[in-house]
Amino acid sequence: MDYVSLSPGTLLSPVPAVLVSCADENGRPNALTVAWAGTVCSDPPMVSVSIRPGRYSHGLISSSGEFVINLCSEDMLADVDYCGVRSGRDGDKLSARGMECVSVEGMARAPGIAGAPMHLGCRVEKVLPLGSHDLFIARIVSLRVREDLVDKKGGIHLEKARLTAYSHGVYYALGKALGFFGFSVASPDVLRRRMKALK
Amino acid sequence: MDYVSLSPGTLLSPVPAVLVSCADENGRPNALTVAWAGTVCSDPPMVSVSIRPGRYSHGLISSSGEFVINLCSEDMLADVDYCGVRSGRDGDKLSARGMECVSVEGMARAPGIAGAPMHLGCRVEKVLPLGSHDLFIARIVSLRVREDLVDKKGGIHLEKARLTAYSHGVYYALGKALGFFGFSVASPDVLRRRMKALK
Repeated sequence: MDYVSLSPGTLLSPVPAVLVSCADENGRPNALTVAWAGTVCSDPPMVSVSIRPGRYSHGLISSSGEFVINLCSEDMLADVDYCGVRSGRDGDKLSARGMECVSVEGMARAPGIAGAPMHLGCRVEKVLPLGSHDLFIARIVSLRVREDLVDKKGGIHLEKARLTAYSHGVYYALGKALGFFGFSVASPDVLRRRMKALK
Repeated sequence: MDYVSLSPGTLLSPVPAVLVSCADENGRPNALTVAWAGTVCSDPPMVSVSIRPGRYSHGLISSSGEFVINLCSEDMLADVDYCGVRSGRDGDKLSARGMECVSVEGMARAPGIAGAPMHLGCRVEKVLPLGSHDLFIARIVSLRVREDLVDKKGGIHLEKARLTAYSHGVYYALGKALGFFGFSVASPDVLRRRMKALK
């Protein structure tokens, strides 16, 4: 298989496109879309988000030391895109899109976006300037899942959330479930049972 | 919309599940699967991968200071899963799965996995111990795309790569294209033309 060499670029994909919400010292909320986001540690649970120093939310998060990651479903996608291309410096993006805020446990001022499938309340532990972006490394201090995504036994059904992924400038729906962690070494019985459950 | 509070966990999703390949001082290659991976800076282009200190590849990457990120397509998924659940300490995972290595520009020893849609050659700049995982922050020094994914004008068609995403223990195909970056503020003409191109 032949390859074409190109200049190094940010083509790791797919990545999540999440709404990161925060607030200023008067509690005025803002949200920006971040695709340079990910989990960085399991125990303690930690995430990172990379934000350009010039972004309005960069200042809010730097001064408050907290933010909320809102996972995004297909029905939120136009709002997500809007919060990625417009700045809170030029107006209230949330009102402009009719998005509502809800308070999130463990956060002094950063709100969650009402209706998002999940809110991850995050407290900043470290900020690393890397170049165009600063890397905010944060601990997840609270986690909240929309009620309709949790079954009676407390199981989380994220597959019902219709999450979206971002790849090379395009937002995608998550498609068919292809396998579960460990499927390549599962016994035939387990494989059959669990793959059936994924359909 | 009501929410259920759960204990904080690593539920940011979807995330990529990429094969990270590296090699020991004798050039013996290994690969492990990393879902705690993401882009962290655009300029210079940088990524991060989080790896448990106990993992065999942790030592290889720490001592060589380099690794290759292989984006993963659906047809590689069983190999990807296998490299996540098995250890290079117990045997040669690549041979066990019939995976072949190719050399990657800018890398002294870390190979790429033959056939992967894309190879990102990465040089480690910083390692941050966070708890269960160490965060490797690395600069992308080379980028290579499979020839069939690049058109005659040099445009990259990652949508043909059939990439996969990982969410809460399950691997998913990327589904329908839902929009492009900026679609929420695009003019009707641009919206029509570009959405049509995404079909």
